[in-house]
Amino acid sequence: MKLMTVMIAALFLFSTSWAQGQHTQSGRTESMQTASNFTKVAPALEKYARGPLAELWKRPGLTPRDRSLVTIAALIARNQTVEMPYYFDLALNNGVKASELSEVITHLAFYSGWSNAASAVAIAKDVFERRGIGPDQLPPASPELLPLNEDAEADRAARVEQDFGKVAAGVVQYTTDLLFRDLWLRPALTPRDRSLVTVSALIASGQVAQITYHLNRAMDNGLTKSQASEVLTQLAFYAGWPNVFSALPVAKAVFEKRPD
Amino acid sequence: MKLMTVMIAALFLFSTSWAQGQHTQSGRTESMQTASNFTKVAPALEKYARGPLAELWKRPGLTPRDRSLVTIAALIARNQTVEMPYYFDLALNNGVKASELSEVITHLAFYSGWSNAASAVAIAKDVFERRGIGPDQLPPASPELLPLNEDAEADRAARVEQDFGKVAAGVVQYTTDLLFRDLWLRPALTPRDRSLVTVSALIASGQVAQITYHLNRAMDNGLTKSQASEVLTQLAFYAGWPNVFSALPVAKAVFEKRPD
Amino acid sequence: MKLMTVMIAALFLFSTSWAQGQHTQSGRTESMQTASNFTKVAPALEKYARGPLAELWKRPGLTPRDRSLVTIAALIARNQTVEMPYYFDLALNNGVKASELSEVITHLAFYSGWSNAASAVAIAKDVFERRGIGPDQLPPASPELLPLNEDAEADRAARVEQDFGKVAAGVVQYTTDLLFRDLWLRPALTPRDRSLVTVSALIASGQVAQITYHLNRAMDNGLTKSQASEVLTQLAFYAGWPNVFSALPVAKAVFEKRPD
Repeated sequence: MKLMTVMIAALFLFSTSWAQGQHTQSGRTESMQTASNFTKVAPALEKYARGPLAELWKRPGLTPRDRSLVTIAALIARNQTVEMPYYFDLALNNGVKASELSEVITHLAFYSGWSNAASAVAIAKDVFERRGIGPDQLPPASPELLPLNEDAEADRAARVEQDFGKVAAGVVQYTTDLLFRDLWLRPALTPRDRSLVTVSALIASGQVAQITYHLNRAMDNGLTKSQASEVLTQLAFYAGWPNVFSALPVAKAVFEKRPD
Repeated sequence: MKLMTVMIAALFLFSTSWAQGQHTQSGRTESMQTASNFTKVAPALEKYARGPLAELWKRPGLTPRDRSLVTIAALIARNQTVEMPYYFDLALNNGVKASELSEVITHLAFYSGWSNAASAVAIAKDVFERRGIGPDQLPPASPELLPLNEDAEADRAARVEQDFGKVAAGVVQYTTDLLFRDLWLRPALTPRDRSLVTVSALIASGQVAQITYHLNRAMDNGLTKSQASEVLTQLAFYAGWPNVFSALPVAKAVFEKRPD
Repeated sequence: MKLMTVMIAALFLFSTSWAQGQHTQSGRTESMQTASNFTKVAPALEKYARGPLAELWKRPGLTPRDRSLVTIAALIARNQTVEMPYYFDLALNNGVKASELSEVITHLAFYSGWSNAASAVAIAKDVFERRGIGPDQLPPASPELLPLNEDAEADRAARVEQDFGKVAAGVVQYTTDLLFRDLWLRPALTPRDRSLVTVSALIASGQVAQITYHLNRAMDNGLTKSQASEVLTQLAFYAGWPNVFSALPVAKAVFEKRPD
């Protein structure tokens, strides 16, 4: 009798654990799980997932790879771990390299906060293990950096020093040494992709006041107006309409001041 | 000896798993668990829970059902899954129909972000299963829509098109087709309740720039000033004082421009 | 055969459960786990953790105890539970008393939202249990309150009543009775530390509009300019650069209007 109880208990637990493992270990399974949840709670969401959300990813103007970069930046910036396994997998399927996903997380440690990166790392670890992605596919801790545009950086540093040097000398110093003379020059993400991720994270977390500088920088780094426009469209779904409507006037002002 | 180990291990795990299941499956148990945690960490919170927080729900000016709509909107907008089982249960006890809770989640997929809805769906699934709420009690994916106020919608669409049509044509198009000619017309939530949920989510997530339009719309849809005032009071507790103090000047301006 | 299956299953589950328990129960282990995750996903983050992040905590201008208060306020305000076990432990190691950590959570129930506190309480419970911190070390629910500066409070209450008394009488009443005539007078945190935690939570959650009042209050309560400057530096890492850059102009304006 007791043995039977043990067996039932253990087998029940094993099957439960196995099923949960499947959900967290497999993006595909998690997606099926989410779809199954939709039908049990909100059938309209399943309809919208198969309709407009699926179509969103196929819109011209932004590649699926770029849409994945935008989406994972939004998830990390908003610390939405539940959806990360599925969208990290999708990103890798859409042509984002493992080294690029790694570097997106590294970048957002500074632009979304250290703990957001720590949470994302815990998810990415499982995704990488499942796909057999080892250390050889990751960016080195200390790579040879991209060349710096010394004039542009001197201008930026001087302006920030003048504005805030007496308010928070530590912030100003780290911004120069750690961000613009180190992080932004790491070669595992192109400056354009790094900007794309930064702008996406800013919009997704409602950091309206920081969009002007970084959207201009993104476009200096090669993001086109039509791509930026589709970034906003992608984020309407993944960061919610209000974040995008708060970003629209800023994007409009940036667009209007730049040549076509 | 080994058998004993297995039995102890299995029974220990079973009891642990069962207890955890209780916590996540039962709002009542979770509430007791939270209260027990309070006494072990912050006894003042237990006092405030029994005092001002309990009284908040009994204040005149907003029904318990409305307070539940406000509170679950805040939790979904802020992605606070830990408290969802308890407050989803409370909402159903306070007269929010399962179909309405389902529709709140569907609505906030667009106004808080797709992943917020996915997280809420996973919680609601357990609540619905425990209460025996089946698909027959859920809103259909494609219901007959409420009639559209064509003039008002034409005005809205024209204004947004003029403001942002050249910035993000995709956002503008989806806003019309998906939100105002579909989502807002779904009959499982009244327009007044849909507005109540929208305004609550905006305040709870600090989307100050979007409050003016939606608070006016909510009042056009039947929300009174005294109800809106109590929405702010409810959210002070559930979204934190700062979010409410940032919303107060906007609410004041909206109130002052409307007839009493 | 079946017995063997049961044994393997049970022992496997037991070891898994034990390992997970270690991670969540021990800040030290969790930190090692995070470091291990970094090497498997983003080696640069491990480098930054050992370099600039470790140095940050040793910078002059703000004690490790104050940096811990700033950091746990940021984590609670942002609901980042994954990192809480480690940083709650670190806070206690850095000289934050258990009663103070308890009171920080109580305070942020109102300044970050009730559910943020509920999540933090669940984490702190495990930390307290592991360290043998019992009810005798917690602040009483209803202590003798600190003396009130009646003139300053009358001024504050009159201003808020004039601004928002007709918009949300409930908010105004609770702000007086619950916050400024109760919460702020609880003796388990000094007013200076309470202000430090409040300002940190505001910056960390992007509540820019509320910083001016509370940064002035913090400095009235004894926070120096150089300390406030280092609070911003600490938060650049733990709340992300954008939140700090949005706070910098406000901090600058506050600093400039105050005598040195």
